[in-house]
Amino acid sequence: MPPTVGWIGCGVMGSSMVKNLLAEKYEVGLYTRTESKAQALLDSGARWFESPAQLAVHHDIVISMVGYPEDVESVYLGETGILSKPSGDRRCTCVIDMTTSQPTLACKIAEVASRQGIASLDAPVSGGDVGARDATLSIMVGGDTDAFARAQPIFGVLGKQAILQGGPGAGQHAKMVNQIIIASTMIGMCEGLLYARRSGLDAQKVLGSVSEGAAGSWSLSNLAPRILQGDFQPGFFVEHFVKDIGIALAECEQMGIDLEGLKLARRLYDEVLQAGGGRLGTQALYRAIDNERERDGS
Amino acid sequence: MPPTVGWIGCGVMGSSMVKNLLAEKYEVGLYTRTESKAQALLDSGARWFESPAQLAVHHDIVISMVGYPEDVESVYLGETGILSKPSGDRRCTCVIDMTTSQPTLACKIAEVASRQGIASLDAPVSGGDVGARDATLSIMVGGDTDAFARAQPIFGVLGKQAILQGGPGAGQHAKMVNQIIIASTMIGMCEGLLYARRSGLDAQKVLGSVSEGAAGSWSLSNLAPRILQGDFQPGFFVEHFVKDIGIALAECEQMGIDLEGLKLARRLYDEVLQAGGGRLGTQALYRAIDNERERDGS
Repeated sequence: MPPTVGWIGCGVMGSSMVKNLLAEKYEVGLYTRTESKAQALLDSGARWFESPAQLAVHHDIVISMVGYPEDVESVYLGETGILSKPSGDRRCTCVIDMTTSQPTLACKIAEVASRQGIASLDAPVSGGDVGARDATLSIMVGGDTDAFARAQPIFGVLGKQAILQGGPGAGQHAKMVNQIIIASTMIGMCEGLLYARRSGLDAQKVLGSVSEGAAGSWSLSNLAPRILQGDFQPGFFVEHFVKDIGIALAECEQMGIDLEGLKLARRLYDEVLQAGGGRLGTQALYRAIDNERERDGS
Repeated sequence: MPPTVGWIGCGVMGSSMVKNLLAEKYEVGLYTRTESKAQALLDSGARWFESPAQLAVHHDIVISMVGYPEDVESVYLGETGILSKPSGDRRCTCVIDMTTSQPTLACKIAEVASRQGIASLDAPVSGGDVGARDATLSIMVGGDTDAFARAQPIFGVLGKQAILQGGPGAGQHAKMVNQIIIASTMIGMCEGLLYARRSGLDAQKVLGSVSEGAAGSWSLSNLAPRILQGDFQPGFFVEHFVKDIGIALAECEQMGIDLEGLKLARRLYDEVLQAGGGRLGTQALYRAIDNERERDGS
């Protein structure tokens, strides 16, 4: 019998991932803060539960994919959280947090879980809305080898690869690397597109050239076309990326490293946020970089 | 009969490109500032000529792949340059500059060439040393449609695609877009690798995860592994990239746009240059970003 899965969080990513589990005949229980967001999945065969604690009582593995570290903390350690009940009352023996969150929080959860005899993995993902939908996510995992082996079949349904990066928190650290790389890559892409337009080129044609050379990237292939169509829908929310950058910068401060590209990205993404763009996709960075936009109306 | 080709410049890129032409049985004449650099190609069947002007006398098409805009200017407009002789004495009817150079200089050359009844293309490339060797370059072309059509068979030997981006200078502008995108992408990659090391992760393993997700890029696949091996050989010279960034920033100033990522890249690459790294590969940016390197010796 495959393990039963309790799932927390039905955002852009979580919903697609649950769909993929249901398609593979997994028995999935659901909890999410806003019940209405779960409706489509409940119609597709998932069952509703009243709290993370209830999910843990009735499922072998509980997986969370929520928004912010404070949500993660409440889902695991809160009053009706996964780890709130005495362990005897629970079927759950393994928890997996796939939210992008703080490495230190991942360690804290692993410690509490371990005291209750529950294995814990931090397993954030990369690959965006497309990757969640097509199950082509890259999954970065922190935790112990046994738990990783147990979770592999589920990771196989959700993504194209899962790599154990180290102990608790290592998945989150790897994800920070991912976000740090993306932050400046996005700056380069948006600056390039702005230059293309201002120099009078056909940006679509330029994209045809630069995507195929040394400037090529996932962002350029997947997000630049959206920018050229004026499509700033998420994808991946600006407000979540700002959260990720904040976590990374806090970690950098602790390590004593100064990442100027990342700091520039924070400043530019903050501008998008201040202008009310928190629920736009990360490609909305173009708006902050096109700093003459308002003036000449282009 | 395929056109005969006069070639100027035997650097990392040029040498590989001439090899590919010779392999396809093109008749190739060579001129380069340092004759010794041409020796291997002369041994492979290319013929030596004493000046760009002499190449133009004896070949249908002359192609330049040199270092700096001042080299381009001298090769075309200098005393023994391609366009220095009265046109009656020349076989050459088409010139192609594949150097990354100033858009305005491309326009000036096109104008002088046109007065002499010679077609002119600016056709810089992307894809690095690997792309030149494997003939997988992406070629960005500015000039007129007829000349582009005539050059297509040669472009087909040198790269995997050539796109006409517009009139004279448009190839150079498209290449600036390419370099602007790369500049910040390199920052993100180096910052990500630094974070990976400082947070105690196995950087090689992290690369396995992040290359396959939304952080993926040509740089990450081709240059990050070199950084992890401590291999800072060129590839593409830091001093040439600094030149390209300088051209792009000058164009930005004229257009009235402020690209902060590009300016940060210039400052960081200048540090590499100041530390004597001009003839290293562009991945040596890692040294400037790893600003604690000297202090703790890692």
